[in-house]
Amino acid sequence: MTAGDPLLAVHGGAGRLPRRALSRKNRAAYEEGLASALKAGWRTLRRGGSALKAVTEAVAVLEDHQLFNAGRGAALCADGTAELSASLMNGKSREVGAMVGLRRARNPIRAAGTLIGHAHGLLFGEEADRYAAQHGIEQVPQDYFRTEHRWAQWQKRRGTGKITLDHDEENAHGTVGAVARDRRGNLAAATSTGGLVNQLPGRVGDTPVVGAGTWADNGVCAVSATGKGDAFARVAFARRVADLIELGGLSAQEAAESALEEVKNVGGEGGCILIDRNGMCVLPFNSAHMLRGWIGRDGRPHVAIGPDQDVELPAS
Amino acid sequence: MTAGDPLLAVHGGAGRLPRRALSRKNRAAYEEGLASALKAGWRTLRRGGSALKAVTEAVAVLEDHQLFNAGRGAALCADGTAELSASLMNGKSREVGAMVGLRRARNPIRAAGTLIGHAHGLLFGEEADRYAAQHGIEQVPQDYFRTEHRWAQWQKRRGTGKITLDHDEENAHGTVGAVARDRRGNLAAATSTGGLVNQLPGRVGDTPVVGAGTWADNGVCAVSATGKGDAFARVAFARRVADLIELGGLSAQEAAESALEEVKNVGGEGGCILIDRNGMCVLPFNSAHMLRGWIGRDGRPHVAIGPDQDVELPAS
Repeated sequence: MTAGDPLLAVHGGAGRLPRRALSRKNRAAYEEGLASALKAGWRTLRRGGSALKAVTEAVAVLEDHQLFNAGRGAALCADGTAELSASLMNGKSREVGAMVGLRRARNPIRAAGTLIGHAHGLLFGEEADRYAAQHGIEQVPQDYFRTEHRWAQWQKRRGTGKITLDHDEENAHGTVGAVARDRRGNLAAATSTGGLVNQLPGRVGDTPVVGAGTWADNGVCAVSATGKGDAFARVAFARRVADLIELGGLSAQEAAESALEEVKNVGGEGGCILIDRNGMCVLPFNSAHMLRGWIGRDGRPHVAIGPDQDVELPAS
Repeated sequence: MTAGDPLLAVHGGAGRLPRRALSRKNRAAYEEGLASALKAGWRTLRRGGSALKAVTEAVAVLEDHQLFNAGRGAALCADGTAELSASLMNGKSREVGAMVGLRRARNPIRAAGTLIGHAHGLLFGEEADRYAAQHGIEQVPQDYFRTEHRWAQWQKRRGTGKITLDHDEENAHGTVGAVARDRRGNLAAATSTGGLVNQLPGRVGDTPVVGAGTWADNGVCAVSATGKGDAFARVAFARRVADLIELGGLSAQEAAESALEEVKNVGGEGGCILIDRNGMCVLPFNSAHMLRGWIGRDGRPHVAIGPDQDVELPAS
């Protein structure tokens, strides 16, 4: 792995998967989804495209894939609707785009991308959807997001007041995200989510918060986080990881593990994917599972779910 | 100033005040507002109350004061409505509360406070107002927020598409905030805003983002920021300041100045107020003015507006 080689990593959520979700058939479906996302991002990088475009394309595939909690197949709020949030950051310019509480944009990550370079970095609610529509982002009805599985899950929970982390549920996970490094050494990160199962509408976790769920700075690293979002927000996770590398002198792995320990100290768990400025890629987590994968020079997706699986990390 | 002494600082926005706003009469009005906020917070600290309560009380006074851009007197969005956002953080527990886009809560900072200890740390929009109302937060009609000055300002701007930083406008400033250290050495920070004049409804800056506009950690410092919010959000300003102290070994003053330099590098300016774990208080800014002040052992408010004014910083 030389400095000039492009690299991409994705995640599809972290938590504890129930036994049934870990059947051979279900594992294969998750792995296929992760591999599709990696291949989509890789197509961009292989042709010399930007890291920012690569993370957008990879996340859009996971949003379109109904097994993952983002875009189609997102967890439903207590009122039965899907509210979608996403953010991305360009490590070259440190420009950001984030949208909170979208209800109509098919791909929240593309909606967030329309704010890159705009005076405003974060929009929420109705106006976020309107802005995205005005900027050519495909709009879909709420029905599009609502899968059969999600609807059944909501029917079971409705009115109970029980909020569950999506990844504690059957066949379902918390967030999706991607980090990339392109041929020119530029870094980017993107994260997207449907939130928690049965969450209060209007609730926001770390995903759309630059510095919490997403961070990218060419001089340090690109990070996308997943897990109990409120805990990640409370430690401003992604900025913390970058600062532990830049100011604390830690390696990418050490920095991520240290910041995950802080998340644990405030009652959370999860993981992140990270590529540093030297092209080192790590995918650490302190939950039982994290859907994850990476793709590099040979164009072959490497994917994993449990802690037992070796995803053959690229040597830096 | 010994370690056990309580201390409170407030800001009322940073930017460049127009000449007219700097008349003797107008300066006196700003200074009176800052002093009232300092006294309100000090009443809490003097009686042995918590830093979290002190910053809430100080910010609530500035929200109620129509000269400051938060609560009553907030800048109006392009559609003529007031959208209010606030966040606060308890340095002892690192619990947070943040609300985005409130339209009915008289004191956004009290609304944000209802989320301290709740599973969700950040709510936006209609549901945020509903949650606040359910938790006893006073509700007011939009008319309450809309002052004569703001209405005239909006009439002048409406339909022009021109978004202005509020503090570039006559008699008006960007944000309000407070940081405090109580008798037990606990730290807290709070920040509240009406956003930018003529901003797109739905726009969010750094104020309600924990890690950007607000940060508190007993082991390091409490920070509240003000200025061009999108730039502060892009550098995850408040977490950065804390990391520069904790990991970078900088002094409070050096850390704040370094992070403000980062803000400048992405096209922003402004300032912050900071109290570190040793009770050192600094109020640096790189804009022309910052409305600011502090109060300590003698219970006397020290306030200032321009760079020329010495606010007699407490010796640590």
